[in-house]
Amino acid sequence: MLYGGDYNPEQWPRDVWEHDMRLLREASINEVTLNVFSWAALQPDEQTYDFSRLDDIVELVSNNGMQIIMATSTGALPAWMSFKYPDVERVDFDGRKHRHGARQNACPNSPTYRRYAAELAGKLAERYSSLDNLVAWHVSNEYEGMCYCPNCARAYRDWLRGRYGSIDHLNSVWGTDFWGHTYDSFDQIYPPDRAGDGSYDDPCAVLPAASLDYARFFDDSVIGAYKVEKEAIRNVDQHTPITTNFMGNFYQYDYQHWAKDIDIAAWDCYPRLGTPPSDTAFWHDVIRCLKQRPFLLMEQTPSRMNWMPYNALKRPGQMRQQSWQAIAHGADSVQFFQMRRSRYGCEKFHGAVIDADGTDKTRTFQEVAALGRELAQVGSLIVGSMPKARVAMVFDWSSWRGLRNAIGPSTDLDYLREAKAMYAELYRRNISVDVVSADADFSVYDVVLAPTLYIVSEHHAARLNDYVQHGGTLVLTVMSAISDEHDVLHQGFTPAPFHETSGVWTMETDALAPDCTVPLCFGGGASKSIEADADHHESEPAGRVLCDIVVPDDDTEVLATYGEGQFYAGKPAITRHREGSGLCYYAGTFLNVPAMREFIGSVLAEAGIPTIETDPGVSINTRYTQAGEALTFIINDTAEPRTVAIPRDGVDLLAQAPVALKAGVATQLPPFGVMLLR
Amino acid sequence: MLYGGDYNPEQWPRDVWEHDMRLLREASINEVTLNVFSWAALQPDEQTYDFSRLDDIVELVSNNGMQIIMATSTGALPAWMSFKYPDVERVDFDGRKHRHGARQNACPNSPTYRRYAAELAGKLAERYSSLDNLVAWHVSNEYEGMCYCPNCARAYRDWLRGRYGSIDHLNSVWGTDFWGHTYDSFDQIYPPDRAGDGSYDDPCAVLPAASLDYARFFDDSVIGAYKVEKEAIRNVDQHTPITTNFMGNFYQYDYQHWAKDIDIAAWDCYPRLGTPPSDTAFWHDVIRCLKQRPFLLMEQTPSRMNWMPYNALKRPGQMRQQSWQAIAHGADSVQFFQMRRSRYGCEKFHGAVIDADGTDKTRTFQEVAALGRELAQVGSLIVGSMPKARVAMVFDWSSWRGLRNAIGPSTDLDYLREAKAMYAELYRRNISVDVVSADADFSVYDVVLAPTLYIVSEHHAARLNDYVQHGGTLVLTVMSAISDEHDVLHQGFTPAPFHETSGVWTMETDALAPDCTVPLCFGGGASKSIEADADHHESEPAGRVLCDIVVPDDDTEVLATYGEGQFYAGKPAITRHREGSGLCYYAGTFLNVPAMREFIGSVLAEAGIPTIETDPGVSINTRYTQAGEALTFIINDTAEPRTVAIPRDGVDLLAQAPVALKAGVATQLPPFGVMLLR
Amino acid sequence: MLYGGDYNPEQWPRDVWEHDMRLLREASINEVTLNVFSWAALQPDEQTYDFSRLDDIVELVSNNGMQIIMATSTGALPAWMSFKYPDVERVDFDGRKHRHGARQNACPNSPTYRRYAAELAGKLAERYSSLDNLVAWHVSNEYEGMCYCPNCARAYRDWLRGRYGSIDHLNSVWGTDFWGHTYDSFDQIYPPDRAGDGSYDDPCAVLPAASLDYARFFDDSVIGAYKVEKEAIRNVDQHTPITTNFMGNFYQYDYQHWAKDIDIAAWDCYPRLGTPPSDTAFWHDVIRCLKQRPFLLMEQTPSRMNWMPYNALKRPGQMRQQSWQAIAHGADSVQFFQMRRSRYGCEKFHGAVIDADGTDKTRTFQEVAALGRELAQVGSLIVGSMPKARVAMVFDWSSWRGLRNAIGPSTDLDYLREAKAMYAELYRRNISVDVVSADADFSVYDVVLAPTLYIVSEHHAARLNDYVQHGGTLVLTVMSAISDEHDVLHQGFTPAPFHETSGVWTMETDALAPDCTVPLCFGGGASKSIEADADHHESEPAGRVLCDIVVPDDDTEVLATYGEGQFYAGKPAITRHREGSGLCYYAGTFLNVPAMREFIGSVLAEAGIPTIETDPGVSINTRYTQAGEALTFIINDTAEPRTVAIPRDGVDLLAQAPVALKAGVATQLPPFGVMLLR
Repeated sequence: MLYGGDYNPEQWPRDVWEHDMRLLREASINEVTLNVFSWAALQPDEQTYDFSRLDDIVELVSNNGMQIIMATSTGALPAWMSFKYPDVERVDFDGRKHRHGARQNACPNSPTYRRYAAELAGKLAERYSSLDNLVAWHVSNEYEGMCYCPNCARAYRDWLRGRYGSIDHLNSVWGTDFWGHTYDSFDQIYPPDRAGDGSYDDPCAVLPAASLDYARFFDDSVIGAYKVEKEAIRNVDQHTPITTNFMGNFYQYDYQHWAKDIDIAAWDCYPRLGTPPSDTAFWHDVIRCLKQRPFLLMEQTPSRMNWMPYNALKRPGQMRQQSWQAIAHGADSVQFFQMRRSRYGCEKFHGAVIDADGTDKTRTFQEVAALGRELAQVGSLIVGSMPKARVAMVFDWSSWRGLRNAIGPSTDLDYLREAKAMYAELYRRNISVDVVSADADFSVYDVVLAPTLYIVSEHHAARLNDYVQHGGTLVLTVMSAISDEHDVLHQGFTPAPFHETSGVWTMETDALAPDCTVPLCFGGGASKSIEADADHHESEPAGRVLCDIVVPDDDTEVLATYGEGQFYAGKPAITRHREGSGLCYYAGTFLNVPAMREFIGSVLAEAGIPTIETDPGVSINTRYTQAGEALTFIINDTAEPRTVAIPRDGVDLLAQAPVALKAGVATQLPPFGVMLLR
Repeated sequence: MLYGGDYNPEQWPRDVWEHDMRLLREASINEVTLNVFSWAALQPDEQTYDFSRLDDIVELVSNNGMQIIMATSTGALPAWMSFKYPDVERVDFDGRKHRHGARQNACPNSPTYRRYAAELAGKLAERYSSLDNLVAWHVSNEYEGMCYCPNCARAYRDWLRGRYGSIDHLNSVWGTDFWGHTYDSFDQIYPPDRAGDGSYDDPCAVLPAASLDYARFFDDSVIGAYKVEKEAIRNVDQHTPITTNFMGNFYQYDYQHWAKDIDIAAWDCYPRLGTPPSDTAFWHDVIRCLKQRPFLLMEQTPSRMNWMPYNALKRPGQMRQQSWQAIAHGADSVQFFQMRRSRYGCEKFHGAVIDADGTDKTRTFQEVAALGRELAQVGSLIVGSMPKARVAMVFDWSSWRGLRNAIGPSTDLDYLREAKAMYAELYRRNISVDVVSADADFSVYDVVLAPTLYIVSEHHAARLNDYVQHGGTLVLTVMSAISDEHDVLHQGFTPAPFHETSGVWTMETDALAPDCTVPLCFGGGASKSIEADADHHESEPAGRVLCDIVVPDDDTEVLATYGEGQFYAGKPAITRHREGSGLCYYAGTFLNVPAMREFIGSVLAEAGIPTIETDPGVSINTRYTQAGEALTFIINDTAEPRTVAIPRDGVDLLAQAPVALKAGVATQLPPFGVMLLR
Repeated sequence: MLYGGDYNPEQWPRDVWEHDMRLLREASINEVTLNVFSWAALQPDEQTYDFSRLDDIVELVSNNGMQIIMATSTGALPAWMSFKYPDVERVDFDGRKHRHGARQNACPNSPTYRRYAAELAGKLAERYSSLDNLVAWHVSNEYEGMCYCPNCARAYRDWLRGRYGSIDHLNSVWGTDFWGHTYDSFDQIYPPDRAGDGSYDDPCAVLPAASLDYARFFDDSVIGAYKVEKEAIRNVDQHTPITTNFMGNFYQYDYQHWAKDIDIAAWDCYPRLGTPPSDTAFWHDVIRCLKQRPFLLMEQTPSRMNWMPYNALKRPGQMRQQSWQAIAHGADSVQFFQMRRSRYGCEKFHGAVIDADGTDKTRTFQEVAALGRELAQVGSLIVGSMPKARVAMVFDWSSWRGLRNAIGPSTDLDYLREAKAMYAELYRRNISVDVVSADADFSVYDVVLAPTLYIVSEHHAARLNDYVQHGGTLVLTVMSAISDEHDVLHQGFTPAPFHETSGVWTMETDALAPDCTVPLCFGGGASKSIEADADHHESEPAGRVLCDIVVPDDDTEVLATYGEGQFYAGKPAITRHREGSGLCYYAGTFLNVPAMREFIGSVLAEAGIPTIETDPGVSINTRYTQAGEALTFIINDTAEPRTVAIPRDGVDLLAQAPVALKAGVATQLPPFGVMLLR
């Protein structure tokens, strides 16, 4: 199992490098990611390449037995390129042309940038692909941001021509007769910046279809820039995996759309102060399902971040717990940003394995070293194993983007938050989940949850309807299937494409005032009206943010109704409908924690999917080796001790001395404690 | 009575149009507003006009017996014009030239825009003015926004030359020696954007006179653009009323200044979640008084808006209640945005008479149809009748703008809020109010309220002083008459132009800390100090935001003093002064609800204007027909049942069956219930 | 003692001027500051100068016995210059070129601006330097703001060439290999605006060294512009003091760096509603220590400001109290903005000695006149005397700027706030403090407090270490000595340059969640855990914002440990270490009020510096005349009466009649009362 991360020794004299090696070996580090931001050094001018310093670093780390992930260094432009070829620089939403600065600063549609990036990637491949200890190529670094420049405008028009053929077709699909926006030619179309239709209210969109298309085009643009580097490497090196590092919570880049072009999924995991562990697990599951294979945890901080408002230290044991959580969800590496703390630049307050003191005396170093010993011992058992999930959640970038663009019905509507809220209930129940795209093969799952699947094409709707017909259980919610893939309203009884399957018509949707909730009555029983007392506001089931006025079909079962407080008191809120051999649930409001517990509980019970009840903050996950052996990870996500009932007979591989454990025996987990049951 | 609204059938195939007609007739819709955003379709290029689709729509709705309000479609530019003649596009406050996008996107001073807008309006008039069912022309749509482009700069300089003659005169009036701003020529004057004197802090103004003048100039610019269309229509059609639709709460456009150029007042009424009914009534009264004739309620939503943060549904009965409130205040139409819900574009979450299901089954449709039946029955009785008011409130755009521009004395000072706060107390008392400009004929009113009349020219001051001399009752407040029409301080004992009439000198004005209030003691009695307990903070009379240190003349009566808490405890806060045959009240602080109740109560009692006391949320208004018959509207503004004492004998025209009602009899009003007493 | 301030009679006709003179003499005003914003009037075009109006004003005030501080009027550009020579106008952070507007609008690096500013200053000197009543030249006015224009870019490159010689050296010092930022030549360097490295997140800096250098360069630029005027005056007038008026709380301009170029320190003091008196005193002490001589209180408002959100009136007596506070801390003048309230422009709500009524009847006028009488009586005794301080606080603009630029560790970290928090405890104890730069002569102080001295060069560290070695007492805190003068991390055991002196290693630093605190246990005793009860949250000693994990040396004494709540409970929080003949304290967290009291109390006790305990809000300060006589100022900073024990025998010079007062006698101070004990 890879254990390492970013190493940028350029900031120190060479005697420090040797010193670093000794410390890193002491910490059982076996991998370094090199060359992340060295373009200016590797290519000091347009004609010259100079790999001498990188050669030295490669030799050093190789001699010290480290494996290498080699970055291509194209995440930040060299100054000479920015000034000689200004087309490589981006134009921002406000129309401002940028100069040399920041990072992820290249326009992905700049031919100059693409040409030189490919040339550099090719030269790196020629020089280093034969290294025995090269384990992967890492193209660029944390792709992010948008560009609105003339390069992009031209490329966008070509992309649109390819997609729509004629301007009339585009006008029709985009609905440009709205507010008289009709275009006469593709030449009149520009990226939606503040001077155009982005101007109304960032990030709201006058023409949602145009905004969606620009996002999709931009995905293709950045993927295109990635692929010219990938191809340059592949010309030389046909075997080493090629990837780039993704991030969580970025609606701008659709990683599911990227998946086909990466060889192994990798991401950088930075939970902030107060991030629930289930939110982190959600993204682990998204990333694992991109390739349905183990992924790389390519970055995390060993101690603190610097770019959050409040950069708390990871508590003793917490870095270990987070690392094991990643592994439990499918990571085959534990990597850090970074090996040694920056001397300068805006990340100098970011944590590192080696701090400014340059010793092994820090708590951080010692925890890194302890985890290194553990991984050296058991890592090879784990590598290649995978979780198995009977439940899938559909997570859809188009719905995310569409709802971000939407003007109405409520500014409190947050696609990502609602997906995570439903995921959290599955996490609490220790149920393995695949978080997949709308193109996934649903037939392998007993239950498919599709919260807030706002954008659904006819094609995707047909796949999900078919899944229910053939016995699947589908869960839909308020704001389902409002729009098609161009964010054009489906006509008919909402959710029109699922009207028959769901057995409901959501006649209208009420937006609640901020902090207002509506009580929910399950099972026909009376629900108490929710009291204003803040201490109890989560104690009773309730709906949040939006409430559908649901009109159920005659054969639709009502699982919950709205309680007192609004004019739709007593009306259906949650329903279930049998269609074909399957079941379709519809939740007409976003559920608070007690309501989610009740609702998901009944869905799972009906589907025969067992919950593993644990104390709050204890999570249990299992990976299965290719030989079928189960590896069960029992993790205390909290800073307090917890008790857990051992889920099955086994041996804790992380215990000081191996102990046979019996299923059902109550066992103590220390704060942030971890057991690995074989 | 017109019952209808915006109809944009262009988004659907023609078979849907026929279907729509059937449904709209079922809802008693008798009018449609057409052609609001069709410029791009009507004039597909510079040389070509194509009215064929509009012809079809006109024929369809005419055949279905609908009346037509015909928009001129100039509220959004066609793309070819934006790109061929960029001078039609606006430059924003930040200096950014806009491209094709959004709406209300034309520079009103662009000669190109004016030429083509007039040409289109003329062609529409030629084609459709002979229609029997044409009831009005609707120029552009919801004029809004500002422009700071070179067209505007040139036109502004011409406007200033016309107003001031010489640059020396302008320097003197504007006070440009402040901070050495003296101009050498008109060519040095630019619109006050962020690169100039708007730069200090938007929307604050270094030279308040300049900012006021730009606002006035811009009024004239947009009115000018409106008038070229109006004139083009009048060249063809001498009779049909011409108007445009105003909006509430827009300080940028002075509708009182517009009034002379519209034939009938019209506005779009969009109260948001939590807007008090009195705020809505306030704007109805502003709009009615523009022409002192019934107005058009040209838009409202039948169910929900989309562009608010929280777009709650109108409750059952609430759309009807709001419609009747408009009528009670002088509306002669009830119109909706819109007939059918948009399929695409950023308003697709906005409510409509016909929803995406395309049926008559929605609650919204059924409520629209029910109101339609009611209006069909009684509307013709009401049309042309008017309220009668003995009380006027002066609402003054210059004061509003001047205080928005002001740097100091408190950011909590809000002209519109204070006007509405005083209006709310009259609304609670069911007293009919005319909300008028400072140019109104005050002699017809017993009481004139002029809250926060910050900007008062000598001319306007003389009119109000004269009104008091001849027996009127005038109410002034803190921040009265600080500045003249150029926002230059009146010199003398503040409020200098009213010093004699008011009998007070407001020596200084204290700004209170946020959420701080000062208790007020009325009638010499002791007022308890206000406790911190949030539940009681409105229970005792108190002053808010600003407190004058009032120095009364010897013959000035003190009605209230400040209570404990500030150094001016015991000093006069509210006074009354007899001048000539009249009375002038001065409130030296903004009043909370109990203080406003006490103060306005004593003003009205002295003036002999009776209050009609009702339960909270019940409002009673009367319109008088030209024959002198009274039509009394009794409305429950709330979602709870209310009891009302019938104010006079009559018959409720809205009852299922006519019932004779006796004055004084307590009667139940259901939630949002309405009675129309003849 | 000077008593006067800004006088701008240009806004009124000349008969008003005479009237003003009578009133100002009535108020004992003996000085006016003239000509602050008259450039446009003095130089109506490029070729013409016209001093006639200024001559008249000078004659008028001279005839009335007033002294004159003559401004050079260069704080706002004349319009003709802005339009004829656009290079004089600034470019803002967003890249926007400004037009004529606002004030402090000149680019300090514009050759045009410098040429004409010097020419005007020279002509003023020629014309007025021979006046008997000229007491000082006042260059420009309230220098502020930044510029990012091409003039500045060119000058910046020259400045950098001068500083670093070669681009390689600059790359090395700035750490440009971070994110591949390496520059190939100085021509690639631009001011850090939003299009460059300022773009990431204003005001955060990708390359902190670059941001620091731009701030230093800009200091030099504005000082350069100041100096061309100063030199033009000095060519004519070798004797009159030359200065400009500084402001508080402006991190952009390093007044300690300015100090050598001003002849007398002067500042404008505008405490806002709620500013603690100790914050005001802090800035008085900063300003006094610039020259270690009495300073000018060049502006304050006699009643209210206008540019705060809430512009409360100064309470009765409060203007007097604030004036005496300034004097107690070393002011040798009391000056107001302004003599007469503006008729127009954005400062028309600002208070003035004479209000819009133009009389002596206002409370403000009467308080000004009363203070004038007092100063006329005792002022000459005070002038030239100085406080004596045994305690110094280091206040360092580089640390302030560096922490503002920093991304991490906590957005709640505020250098200025922490300096003021420590100062407040000294103020409470009535201990005289010099607030000095890191270049001060520390040997004259018993205690040097260096809170949050984030940036420390080797040179400055050596001076402080040396100070301790030779017997001094040094107080350091969390975030001390993290970076060198280029904001590059010191390598070693943090705080590396003070590691030996402080006897601690701060292994890690935790950032607390908002509003979270950590209890502190002093003296080994147990500290109660802090309860959530808001009323008590300041009652127990606690740490705030950041908490170091402190590793003390063996010979380091632990003064306080962390209480319960975080994983470092029980660990050292505050330490003391004896080094050489001195002592070094280290506080590993920011202290709340009780903890600061405890900590500073023990530091002072150990150093033998006595506290003068007074009731809350009573402050006692002493100035010593050159003859060694003590003048003790006893001031009630509050609006309530207070009792004070007379600190020594003396006579109150401000009493109605002189009374001999005995040390220790309890005496009543009325609200905002002041005694001056001789």
